[in-house]
Amino acid sequence: MPNIINNPNKVLNEIAEKASVFEGKEAVRTILREIFLSGTIGTKSLSRKLRMPIPTIAAIRKELEKIGLISREKKGAILTEKGLIFVNKALGITYLESHSCKKCESTGIALPHEAEKLIAKQRLFSERRPKPQTEIDQAFGRPITAIRRAYLMLENGDLEGREILLIGDDDFTSLAIAQLKTNVKITVLDIDNRLLNVIKEISKENKFNISCVTHDLRKPFSEELINRFDVVLTDPPYTIPGLELFLSRAIQALKDESGRRIYLAYAHRPPKIQLEVQNSITKLGLAIQQLIPGFNLYEGAEMHGNTTNISILSTTDSSKPLFTSDYNEKIYTGELNPTVREYQCKNGHVTKVGFSLEIRNIEVLKEKGCPVCGNADEFTRISRRKI
Amino acid sequence: MPNIINNPNKVLNEIAEKASVFEGKEAVRTILREIFLSGTIGTKSLSRKLRMPIPTIAAIRKELEKIGLISREKKGAILTEKGLIFVNKALGITYLESHSCKKCESTGIALPHEAEKLIAKQRLFSERRPKPQTEIDQAFGRPITAIRRAYLMLENGDLEGREILLIGDDDFTSLAIAQLKTNVKITVLDIDNRLLNVIKEISKENKFNISCVTHDLRKPFSEELINRFDVVLTDPPYTIPGLELFLSRAIQALKDESGRRIYLAYAHRPPKIQLEVQNSITKLGLAIQQLIPGFNLYEGAEMHGNTTNISILSTTDSSKPLFTSDYNEKIYTGELNPTVREYQCKNGHVTKVGFSLEIRNIEVLKEKGCPVCGNADEFTRISRRKI
Repeated sequence: MPNIINNPNKVLNEIAEKASVFEGKEAVRTILREIFLSGTIGTKSLSRKLRMPIPTIAAIRKELEKIGLISREKKGAILTEKGLIFVNKALGITYLESHSCKKCESTGIALPHEAEKLIAKQRLFSERRPKPQTEIDQAFGRPITAIRRAYLMLENGDLEGREILLIGDDDFTSLAIAQLKTNVKITVLDIDNRLLNVIKEISKENKFNISCVTHDLRKPFSEELINRFDVVLTDPPYTIPGLELFLSRAIQALKDESGRRIYLAYAHRPPKIQLEVQNSITKLGLAIQQLIPGFNLYEGAEMHGNTTNISILSTTDSSKPLFTSDYNEKIYTGELNPTVREYQCKNGHVTKVGFSLEIRNIEVLKEKGCPVCGNADEFTRISRRKI
Repeated sequence: MPNIINNPNKVLNEIAEKASVFEGKEAVRTILREIFLSGTIGTKSLSRKLRMPIPTIAAIRKELEKIGLISREKKGAILTEKGLIFVNKALGITYLESHSCKKCESTGIALPHEAEKLIAKQRLFSERRPKPQTEIDQAFGRPITAIRRAYLMLENGDLEGREILLIGDDDFTSLAIAQLKTNVKITVLDIDNRLLNVIKEISKENKFNISCVTHDLRKPFSEELINRFDVVLTDPPYTIPGLELFLSRAIQALKDESGRRIYLAYAHRPPKIQLEVQNSITKLGLAIQQLIPGFNLYEGAEMHGNTTNISILSTTDSSKPLFTSDYNEKIYTGELNPTVREYQCKNGHVTKVGFSLEIRNIEVLKEKGCPVCGNADEFTRISRRKI
């Protein structure tokens, strides 16, 4: 115990190494601090609050348990007496209050009272979405996410009298924008006809005016989409080629002048990868005007803690797409970082799942059922490795 | 009038051209929108809200008056009938509510009740600051700015148990941090001994523990400052060389590991220059994790609308200072963008003021008084031009 207190950095380092997490000792400290602040907290909540992947948190939590700093209660992890001493005395963390803004959830946008109604309606819209196709990186944003984006753009003067393009819209943000009843002109581009058909249906029922275009972004734009829009919103695949392709097309779609804005949703990444993202944005000649962590919340996408950030980018005199013609490289996460996962059904049969295998992902497995016994739910993931 | 409504972009463009503002037609639209939202609003408030320089706003306002879209009331600019029609019909702007968060002023940090006391005390501290030396880009942050920064760092886990370095501290943020009474270790570095002496005095009176080092950042660090700190806060000169020098020294002062944080205050800039800033940050291998516009408020610095943003940067495996030894280039705004201003005293005598002249700036002129009649206040700026 005295050892633990006298050399906290060594302890944090050892835990990080044993858990073999990319994020290092600071992640261990951050998790301990959050457990201290919360009292008891589950892995999913930790993941969302700290914007760290669930596997990272699970691995660290396991090591913290082993060394006796935390224990597991029904509601989640809790500090042991030893853990509390470590946090208070060795790490010097004693302050218990949080001052992040509850009113706007630190997004800067305080939703007005009438937003409740819009969210309720958006929820009804969202329930009509077809199942997400994870192989093309679909992950459905929650109704509040779409509504909050719409208010953010309205606040920034990017809806009224504007022409906006949504490059991909599995989050149904177009419908949230239409709900605000400004005189914006909305165009939605998506590769997935199933989604566009639902947007068209809902549009018709609600007398929204949304123009839908089926388009694979790997193909170049037709003339009428080029140099036309005031604003673009996109939530691209969270890969560098995906980002660069989506932003390149966004620049082409925007009017050819400085100060046009792109709202970019992207995953929270460790500094090293965040720097790569920033490098791509800089290379494209786009200026980051604002970056709001935790702005977007999702139904699925647990690997990213169910939350991503939003950046507001501005075009400059030197904005330039990296690609203007056909794009033939890989862009989706499953293509670029193929993994094989093993799932066990409730009868104990193990099935391998992966982008290059017969069964691409868990959604397909659930649809088809276990190849041995046909059982179609209660699958548990028992392993995951990169190919 | 029909012309104006049918071709709003032409109108906006013409106004921007006549006002010869760098920011273009979007600035004109933004100003009109803000006047519409506010009812009546003065130039200073417009500057703060829109984060645009006062001269830009003054020039556009003048042109808007000429064309009859706004008129000037006691409390500031107001839309004329024609202006209101233009904003509503031609620009399509009719939505009157603002949803930016009042609780945290869209900074994400909601100050607790007890912060009032800390701000009051911080105000007493601030009143003891010597006059700002504008030639080394001093511009004093308001008491709330220092307190808000302290809470932001506390919230992010960057104070408790940490060692923090303030590279320059004309904002007295060190004292705000000390007021929170965490077990942080604070070191302040400044070129200006007058400031450090006041910080030392106040520290002694309040039993704060702040270590002060007089240092010209153009000189390299001594060994004991290198690879030592967990966190750096800096509000550097708003020039690219100033930024690159300050961030280079910050990287050296931080522990040599990924994930160490720099809180960087910097002016809101037009996209073109913001991209240059971002390019420098990227070149230094620093990842932008958050960017909060309008976070810092200042007493003076009216050229920047009295407000700047704060970025939270993280070190990565590839963070590297651009300079490690003596730095002999220019870094301050007055050195890099020298201007000559003409001031008229109340008796009508005109004096030239500038970085390379006998009287460097208005502060010196006020101190010495008019070279002709000795009158020492009520100077009016009548011209300003770059050399």
